[in-house]
Amino acid sequence: MEMKLPGQEEFEASSAPRNIPSGELDSNPGPGTSPSPDGPSDTESKELGVRKDPLLFIQLNELLGWPQALEWRETGRWVLFEEKLEVAAGRWSAPHVPTLALPSLQKLRSLLAEGLVLLDCPAQSLLELVEQVTRVESLSPELRGQLQALLLQRPQHYNQTTGTRPCWGSTHPRKASDNEEAPLREQYQNPLRQKLPPGAEAGTVLAGELGFLAQPLGAFVRLRDPVVLGSLTEVSLPSRFFCLLLGPPMLGKGYHEMGRAAAVLLSDPQFQWSVRRASNLHDLLAALDAFLEEVTVLPPGRWDPTARIPPPKCLPSQHKRLPSQQREIRGPSGPRLTSAEDRHRHGLHAPSQELQRTGRLFGGLIQDVRRKAPWYPSDFLDALHLQCFSAVLYIYLATVTNAITFGGLLGDATDGAQGVLESFLGTAVAGAAFCLMAGQPLTILSSTGPVLVFERLLFSFSRDYSLDYLPFRLWVGIWVATFCLVLVATEASVLVRYFTRFTEEGFCALISLIFIYDAVGKMLNLTHTYPIQKPGSSTYGCLCQYPGPGGNDSQWIRTRPKDRDDIVSMVRKGLSDFSSVLAILLGCGLDAFLGLATPKLMVPREFKPTLPGRGWLVSPFGTNPWWWSVAAALPALLLSILIFMDQQITAVILNRVEYRLQKGAGFHLDLFCVAVLMLLTSVLGLPWYVSATVISLAHMDSLRRESRACAPGELPNFLGIREQRLTGLVVFILTGASIFLAPVLKFIPMPVLYGIFLYMGVAALSSIQFTKRVKLLLMPAKHQPDLLLLRHVPLTRVHLFTAIQLVCLGLLWIIKSTPAAIIFPLMLLGLVGVRKALERVFSPQELLWLDELMPEEERSIPEKGLEPEHSFSGSDSEDSELMYQPKAPEINISVN
Amino acid sequence: MEMKLPGQEEFEASSAPRNIPSGELDSNPGPGTSPSPDGPSDTESKELGVRKDPLLFIQLNELLGWPQALEWRETGRWVLFEEKLEVAAGRWSAPHVPTLALPSLQKLRSLLAEGLVLLDCPAQSLLELVEQVTRVESLSPELRGQLQALLLQRPQHYNQTTGTRPCWGSTHPRKASDNEEAPLREQYQNPLRQKLPPGAEAGTVLAGELGFLAQPLGAFVRLRDPVVLGSLTEVSLPSRFFCLLLGPPMLGKGYHEMGRAAAVLLSDPQFQWSVRRASNLHDLLAALDAFLEEVTVLPPGRWDPTARIPPPKCLPSQHKRLPSQQREIRGPSGPRLTSAEDRHRHGLHAPSQELQRTGRLFGGLIQDVRRKAPWYPSDFLDALHLQCFSAVLYIYLATVTNAITFGGLLGDATDGAQGVLESFLGTAVAGAAFCLMAGQPLTILSSTGPVLVFERLLFSFSRDYSLDYLPFRLWVGIWVATFCLVLVATEASVLVRYFTRFTEEGFCALISLIFIYDAVGKMLNLTHTYPIQKPGSSTYGCLCQYPGPGGNDSQWIRTRPKDRDDIVSMVRKGLSDFSSVLAILLGCGLDAFLGLATPKLMVPREFKPTLPGRGWLVSPFGTNPWWWSVAAALPALLLSILIFMDQQITAVILNRVEYRLQKGAGFHLDLFCVAVLMLLTSVLGLPWYVSATVISLAHMDSLRRESRACAPGELPNFLGIREQRLTGLVVFILTGASIFLAPVLKFIPMPVLYGIFLYMGVAALSSIQFTKRVKLLLMPAKHQPDLLLLRHVPLTRVHLFTAIQLVCLGLLWIIKSTPAAIIFPLMLLGLVGVRKALERVFSPQELLWLDELMPEEERSIPEKGLEPEHSFSGSDSEDSELMYQPKAPEINISVN
Repeated sequence: MEMKLPGQEEFEASSAPRNIPSGELDSNPGPGTSPSPDGPSDTESKELGVRKDPLLFIQLNELLGWPQALEWRETGRWVLFEEKLEVAAGRWSAPHVPTLALPSLQKLRSLLAEGLVLLDCPAQSLLELVEQVTRVESLSPELRGQLQALLLQRPQHYNQTTGTRPCWGSTHPRKASDNEEAPLREQYQNPLRQKLPPGAEAGTVLAGELGFLAQPLGAFVRLRDPVVLGSLTEVSLPSRFFCLLLGPPMLGKGYHEMGRAAAVLLSDPQFQWSVRRASNLHDLLAALDAFLEEVTVLPPGRWDPTARIPPPKCLPSQHKRLPSQQREIRGPSGPRLTSAEDRHRHGLHAPSQELQRTGRLFGGLIQDVRRKAPWYPSDFLDALHLQCFSAVLYIYLATVTNAITFGGLLGDATDGAQGVLESFLGTAVAGAAFCLMAGQPLTILSSTGPVLVFERLLFSFSRDYSLDYLPFRLWVGIWVATFCLVLVATEASVLVRYFTRFTEEGFCALISLIFIYDAVGKMLNLTHTYPIQKPGSSTYGCLCQYPGPGGNDSQWIRTRPKDRDDIVSMVRKGLSDFSSVLAILLGCGLDAFLGLATPKLMVPREFKPTLPGRGWLVSPFGTNPWWWSVAAALPALLLSILIFMDQQITAVILNRVEYRLQKGAGFHLDLFCVAVLMLLTSVLGLPWYVSATVISLAHMDSLRRESRACAPGELPNFLGIREQRLTGLVVFILTGASIFLAPVLKFIPMPVLYGIFLYMGVAALSSIQFTKRVKLLLMPAKHQPDLLLLRHVPLTRVHLFTAIQLVCLGLLWIIKSTPAAIIFPLMLLGLVGVRKALERVFSPQELLWLDELMPEEERSIPEKGLEPEHSFSGSDSEDSELMYQPKAPEINISVN
Repeated sequence: MEMKLPGQEEFEASSAPRNIPSGELDSNPGPGTSPSPDGPSDTESKELGVRKDPLLFIQLNELLGWPQALEWRETGRWVLFEEKLEVAAGRWSAPHVPTLALPSLQKLRSLLAEGLVLLDCPAQSLLELVEQVTRVESLSPELRGQLQALLLQRPQHYNQTTGTRPCWGSTHPRKASDNEEAPLREQYQNPLRQKLPPGAEAGTVLAGELGFLAQPLGAFVRLRDPVVLGSLTEVSLPSRFFCLLLGPPMLGKGYHEMGRAAAVLLSDPQFQWSVRRASNLHDLLAALDAFLEEVTVLPPGRWDPTARIPPPKCLPSQHKRLPSQQREIRGPSGPRLTSAEDRHRHGLHAPSQELQRTGRLFGGLIQDVRRKAPWYPSDFLDALHLQCFSAVLYIYLATVTNAITFGGLLGDATDGAQGVLESFLGTAVAGAAFCLMAGQPLTILSSTGPVLVFERLLFSFSRDYSLDYLPFRLWVGIWVATFCLVLVATEASVLVRYFTRFTEEGFCALISLIFIYDAVGKMLNLTHTYPIQKPGSSTYGCLCQYPGPGGNDSQWIRTRPKDRDDIVSMVRKGLSDFSSVLAILLGCGLDAFLGLATPKLMVPREFKPTLPGRGWLVSPFGTNPWWWSVAAALPALLLSILIFMDQQITAVILNRVEYRLQKGAGFHLDLFCVAVLMLLTSVLGLPWYVSATVISLAHMDSLRRESRACAPGELPNFLGIREQRLTGLVVFILTGASIFLAPVLKFIPMPVLYGIFLYMGVAALSSIQFTKRVKLLLMPAKHQPDLLLLRHVPLTRVHLFTAIQLVCLGLLWIIKSTPAAIIFPLMLLGLVGVRKALERVFSPQELLWLDELMPEEERSIPEKGLEPEHSFSGSDSEDSELMYQPKAPEINISVN
């Protein structure tokens, strides 16, 4: 299950002008700043927004049909990108990056230089404007009259609202001056109208060939007060700019291209800024020259100038382009983090203030509580939004799927000491309690893979020593809670800064491989219990009613993510949101349809523990000798390490800067909650819980606040996350209520759950950079993708790093497979040590690209000297592809 | 099985200079011209090649390390695209489209305008050149000495050959003048050396900041005689151009960017042409200005100037950019077809001359024989090339797979009246005979889907009437041969011009659906014979040793084409070439491993007909009444239509202009051969054969002649096809020899063959435009791809066209499913009629985009007025995306 964005959008019109690329204006307090609860971000950016220039919609009207049937037609429009009218097909093209020819810009420049420039023109209507514009000496009175009549003619707009056939605003052209001031009904009905934020202004470019003109006529007008100029534009917006480019017929598409050049100029934020403040022709031409200074030039022989370039996923920062005054106006809103170093330094590290050691016992915990307490009321008020409703539905389904899967597997692994009922109950209790108390209430608690693996080890250990499992497990839980409290008291969470990608990915790869190995192993085991029957063999005669297992399910599940065809994407999104539920349903349906005798999920028929004969409270000793309660401290130590790592790696990922969380993290408080819940679940014999990475990320993603008003081709702006406690709470209350679903759940075949497990393992493994680097080992250089790290680290060094990771992984696997398996959490911690030792093998520059830096390394490198080779290659600003790879969570274990 | 290109390449150095985009220089006689056999294409283009400018390799050496450790380093290189040295990673970047900033071009212009320009400089060594270049008034003798020493310093080249770590040409810089004339060993070992064609020249740009210079120093030198300038360039090429751009330190990366601008200019074919012929500074600057006139400009706010653009699949035609003299030099070599109309008019239609009616009995056949006879000796001599060997291997495997699959299915459909043995024998005899006699010897004969479908109908018909099948079939064959001879005599093949895409795709869609329906139906049928066993049911007690069919195979086959990960592509290609063989092997292996009791391919153990008790010659009457031999004329009429359509649609596709066949087609002769072979195979009771589209296309593709010498980032040039008869002949001789494989073949389970059939159906269906349009029906406009036809035809009209096709298909399906099924070939012909009627519903412009034009329509439209809306929208030249969609065969029934 990938991260999903249910259709949440937000109208933030006044706070986020759309003519500046996303991220430009969003307030980003950056690491280390914690805004006061009474003055959150929105107000800040709204105040800023007041001073911003309004959005500009630009339209190109062309004069066509010379000489017989002169008429104005809209042929192009711009907000951020260009849309061209496909005349024959009667539709707007997809938005694309506009491309220009240099001569058309130069011709435009000379036409404007010789033409009429009216800045702060006081015209209040189209009529007044036309009169002012045609007051040119070179025109005879007769020509002037003809020209005025032509300019007042109503232009033809392609009308999107009227359904089936291409239709024009008015089929019989008539004088617009009839009802010039009253914009047409179609202008209001235009769907573009709703997309543009209030306060948007229009700019119109009129271009074309006019036979009766002896010489070119150019005019550029900035209106003092923006005014709706009748039906000049397809949407009824007050016009601010008006540009007229007419002349005698010339070769090629001169005026068409000049008109496009003028429109593209007007759509440039920098040019807009300058021309709004221009006081004379010189300023206007200077703005045009400044534009030319910064254009990107593609050589003619190597690029087809007519190719349509789709809008890039992320635009370059406009910050550097802005003149100094403008930059000052922006005030506290920081620029987007674009450079590789910035991202590395800020993006991958946890906010540093929360991870400063106070030096006092429970100092971190107290600080966390202090930091979070003022936000507590808002944690419930901020949830009053419709979006939270859809988030609850979505996360509820994910949580239930998770509870079924892990409950089923846990029951399988512990011979029914726990089961689906315990899974539902535990998830509901622990999850809800965590949401109420935790430092990061967006976290969704869940049984995760590593804990499941450990529980399996623990169970087989207790069986080897003929122990009563649940009482032994209770003591392990008590010890784990104790150790975790010690870790909280000693502020051990500050050590998470040493968890670099090397550790995260090593951990993830190992768990993924265990998932895959187990799933395949389980399936193969089933072929012994439920064998595939061969012709002529009579050995399994009495089992002849059991054919092969329902292996189809897992096959189906694995091919699922590739299904990215062009089906109606709403349908697709809806299906993909519930893909695991659908996979389970389909598997169950197939199983039922074929009537296969597969092993099913074990679910008790009543509300009582899965293990027959035990009550809800686990007896403290059972049949075990008393000293096992002390001996349990040893596995508990190992489990504590595992839980600490699992919990904190997830917490680091969730609290990354790119999610722009306002209310801060609470690493110590979270660990404290986990410790308390550990105790509770052990006493009740429920599964153990820690934060689940992917399901929590999906939760955050379903609570994204995004700007709604989007120009064609623009991606929505990310404004932040709705940080609150209510969605999580409701999800877990619903999960608790779902215990009564248990009778239905017993129809789920275990192979279906193994299939999901297999899929999770493969998906997680394929999402990490380590896997990409392993693939590089096998790939000839020519076919390697243009990864950033390959631009900065020699291939042999990349391979060496990968090889070391592979060796570590192999060692971990060997330890896991020996009787010493139970100490493997300790070995996981060893990864941090190995990473530390790598500092002797690799340079900090290499580690910056291959991994990230540890705290000491970071300090040891001068701020500006991270990549000395830049002075040679000048590649400092050439890593823009970073921006085309939006930051995704590094670890992606699905639905754990 | 998609079309494959085994690694065939050709060194055509002198005939195809690489600095002109592919297709520019290839001789393309165009439709209707048939070059004389004694003067084929290669000579022509070689003669032309002598007059072409040599390829230019451009290298940028930058002066780095000021002021302490001055040294020259190569930082970029250009042939067609730019490669940048990634200093830290020690490798060359992937080739990409160079992007420039406008100011750097302008600064370069003014530096050249004020600097030294030496055209036809007589220098014979680097020393002489440096002396000439530094003879500038502004330099004091002391500075001149310093500068000369600097310029003679050996530059550092990144050395690709030395393995593991980045390594530079020489670690201790020393005077290059020591052995200036002797190029270094590394220069010769450079792998780029082998890629560049003989005669290539070098251009070097030297740029950098030099503190002791008071003012900028620019020099542009064209050497009269190209000479190897020591170790100046990384490959030892004679240098033609030398550009020096030095100056005092300035802000930003001024000289780096100026150097890049100079290099990009030199890599432009148009600029190269001009500057080779420039006689003074004015010419040089004019060439630069001409370059600027044609650049594509991207606005700064909408495009990240540092983004690396990968080389486009196809470059715009340089033809229009060339000045008239240059165009004349090109002489008879035609420009590449780029406009939509050109492609439509030439690309989709069969060569017209061969399809002119002569009006005489057998006139077309006689003309075909006359046209082909002179080529006959060369049809064997042209096969003397190593490439033909790999083509034989590849096509042999495809043919054998095909013979197995169709033989198995035919045996299945006719209750063993034919089988695998007949399939092998028939393929060998018919295929070899066709290769020896046919008009288009590249055609691979095969049993195709439509014929198989008809044979199945015929068999069930004969069973309904209790007929002796093979004798009845013999008479059908005799009649078909007769009818086909009549079609040849009356020159009916000229009618293929009426087969438009509408007909082709209707035919293809129907056949694909029949494939899919049959494959699924067969599998479901198997569940009756070999049921899935349910628990507790005792009905099938005695069958308990037969579990479910090996349905896994088909699942595996379906996911196969998606397996496009970044595995080592050599491996990938090797695997994909033999994908169907591997699929069959894997299916058989799985079947054998699990010991499933699946139905297997029926193969006789000896070399005798599959049907027990019959000889190789079919008795003319058998047990049938004599009048059935007359009645057989009726189904024969229908089969003739089917064979005519199947054969000729394939022939039209194979003889398309884009394959640049030199020896012409032979529609009448091909049909004649098919008729003769029809008779032969009917007499022997072998399967019937017509041309198979995809396997023939694969054959042609494996015989592509392509230029080898490729600039980085450039795709190989297509030069033509090795047209000969030998590869086909050898393939069929080998197929005949493979009859002795028959004992091995009996291990192939039938479900595996059904799986391949299913895959073929799905693959063929998904490759046609009709399917794309059906998807459009379900897609909201926003998500629709930017298809060319959607730019030119209103969506509702597209939907109407699709709906009509769907209705036709539905009617055909209904007819196929009723007792009237046997007349469905007649209905197929009805498609042509429906298409004709569509002329009343759609305008010629719409049909041009949705389909293609029929001969009458084509004539009815004035040459220049095909798309009147162009005068309004000016979109004439904006359909460049066509060029990014390389022409692929429309119909893609795999391995049929």
